[in-house]
Amino acid sequence: MSKRPWNFSAGPAILPEPVLERVAAAVGNLRSANFWNEGIESDLSILEISHRGPAFSSIHEHAIDLVHEVVGVPRDRRVMFLQGGASLQFCMVPMNLRREGKVACYVETGAWSKKAIAESERIGPTRVVASSKETGFDRIPDAPSAEDLVDAAYLHVTTNNTIYGTEYRELPEVPPDVPLVADLSSDIASRPMALDRLGIGYAGAQKNLGPSGVTLVFGRRELLDESDPADVPAYLRYRTFAKAGGLYNTPNTFGILVLAAVLEWVRDEGGVCAMGERNERKARKIYEVLDANDVYEPHARPEDRSWMNVTFRLAGADEAERAERTSRFLSEAEAAGFSGLKGHRSVGGVRASIYNAFPEAGVDAFVEFLREFARRA
Amino acid sequence: MSKRPWNFSAGPAILPEPVLERVAAAVGNLRSANFWNEGIESDLSILEISHRGPAFSSIHEHAIDLVHEVVGVPRDRRVMFLQGGASLQFCMVPMNLRREGKVACYVETGAWSKKAIAESERIGPTRVVASSKETGFDRIPDAPSAEDLVDAAYLHVTTNNTIYGTEYRELPEVPPDVPLVADLSSDIASRPMALDRLGIGYAGAQKNLGPSGVTLVFGRRELLDESDPADVPAYLRYRTFAKAGGLYNTPNTFGILVLAAVLEWVRDEGGVCAMGERNERKARKIYEVLDANDVYEPHARPEDRSWMNVTFRLAGADEAERAERTSRFLSEAEAAGFSGLKGHRSVGGVRASIYNAFPEAGVDAFVEFLREFARRA
Repeated sequence: MSKRPWNFSAGPAILPEPVLERVAAAVGNLRSANFWNEGIESDLSILEISHRGPAFSSIHEHAIDLVHEVVGVPRDRRVMFLQGGASLQFCMVPMNLRREGKVACYVETGAWSKKAIAESERIGPTRVVASSKETGFDRIPDAPSAEDLVDAAYLHVTTNNTIYGTEYRELPEVPPDVPLVADLSSDIASRPMALDRLGIGYAGAQKNLGPSGVTLVFGRRELLDESDPADVPAYLRYRTFAKAGGLYNTPNTFGILVLAAVLEWVRDEGGVCAMGERNERKARKIYEVLDANDVYEPHARPEDRSWMNVTFRLAGADEAERAERTSRFLSEAEAAGFSGLKGHRSVGGVRASIYNAFPEAGVDAFVEFLREFARRA
Repeated sequence: MSKRPWNFSAGPAILPEPVLERVAAAVGNLRSANFWNEGIESDLSILEISHRGPAFSSIHEHAIDLVHEVVGVPRDRRVMFLQGGASLQFCMVPMNLRREGKVACYVETGAWSKKAIAESERIGPTRVVASSKETGFDRIPDAPSAEDLVDAAYLHVTTNNTIYGTEYRELPEVPPDVPLVADLSSDIASRPMALDRLGIGYAGAQKNLGPSGVTLVFGRRELLDESDPADVPAYLRYRTFAKAGGLYNTPNTFGILVLAAVLEWVRDEGGVCAMGERNERKARKIYEVLDANDVYEPHARPEDRSWMNVTFRLAGADEAERAERTSRFLSEAEAAGFSGLKGHRSVGGVRASIYNAFPEAGVDAFVEFLREFARRA
């Protein structure tokens, strides 16, 4: 594993090297990978064992346990590993939580929340109760009031916005009868969060939790287990999975193993508290250089800046100069061993995704590069 | 990779050892895994690269190419890798293919087709046009006539029935205006098939194609690209994926790599023709011993027996003796190094799943065990 570039990919994103080594071994042979202390009694690969057999059952239970212990999901919540990413949750949430006479309420903070809103609108009455659209999604809007939510079936937020680089510092508070639903895909397990405030939380795994193809869904049992909309296909009802202990059909077995290995790594590094301190420090180092040099224009306003995705543009007298500088920045960065910095295709510019597994040494090297580039710009 | 048991798991199922070695290397480092002749320019793991970057694009295109070349999907069909398994296709098919005034038609051949039928019934008019329910799903029923299909939106079949051990020897022929839709999850790429007869084919990867968490979907472009039911969520419309070249949201990137490696292995072993000859021989060897010994009662009638899943019961004067023998058979088999033989929880008995990657040497060893057990029974 030599010569690894610094991987700023927005997702699927960097994973810790010890995790990669462990799961590569498990692709060969589960027993010799010696995955957990108690060992797994199988000489097969993780890729070829039944999801209903004892070896995978122990992996599955261990993964659920780690979601409680490490991520901080309260023990009384149900934890499930589905497929389809956040994109499938965008329709499953309204399909399962819509209530006669109630309105699905959303906070609009960028591209992903817009997709969630569009799916809800297809399914039933939907209202945007707060938005930062007018300021180019450069901030987290003020939380909606209790009055805004008087007829709410639920309130949906996107906790971190990968494309615009904004992030909730704290989950909003909602009236007790309104379930809070959060798309946590890009900042779950990055710091301590008041996850007990959530009715349902979900996260595609491919940023802080593991590989692509696994979606963590957790929440209050009365929401996941008891909602049973008869006109909704079985696969799209939370209850279908809840009743089957999460295993309605064959899950992404390998992905769940990787997720467990990643969460063990988080735990062994000091848990989400240590992650939060490290992530804040990593982000601050980059924002400081960006703020100190006019050639960089960070997108988000300071108080709402993401610790996960630092997004900025290169300054220029006109769009042509901006474009030329951006392109030069990206190619020089690539040559210097910084990979995956190109901004999302919808907004351009630069995006440095510095999830949990992105090492502080990589941030220090990048900060040096940013200083150097500014000097020459 | 020593001491591997003979793995009869019904899915996730056995994978070829050379494939496991290659993909374990790719979990470490894509370049050093030297995955294809041209190499992949990345020192990152397959688990941590963007699905929109050049390394994954080349993997994705290569996988699509192999589906045409090796599986035999005609070049003019669209090929996509989705998530959610066959279970999600059970609702996506009727959601996308229902037509005003038409009826969704199904052949009922066991548990999986029943699930597909149940989802279709939730979505619109549905008719079972052929069934082997009355004979305990021991056969493939006669194909429906053109008259049966006069108002059909499509005809859906399950080509191999893992639980009951029956299999279509040939895809049925349908009137030219009726799309044939096939769940090929458990026998795709196991032999040459007339896939040009299909409007849409789909297959969970975890039997003959790779790991769990990837669903291959292919079909005629007018069905996948052009159907655009506005009331269906974006994620559940084939068109959404088709318009995005298959990459609407983050796919199971690792699973697609494994699928490509498996298909290269199939190609290098002689392709689906060689697989078909080998699979027929493997199955015949087992059925011959079962037929020759009264202690075994194969479930399927001879002409419809599956080459993928051999299902049988142990004979007995009463249920107690059957149960005792079955339990003894399974524990002796496990002790002798045969893993995963327990029949599906819904029917009990024994199931030997002998997918492409199950070696003939394992079949020979199992045949010996079957003879030996019968001698003592």
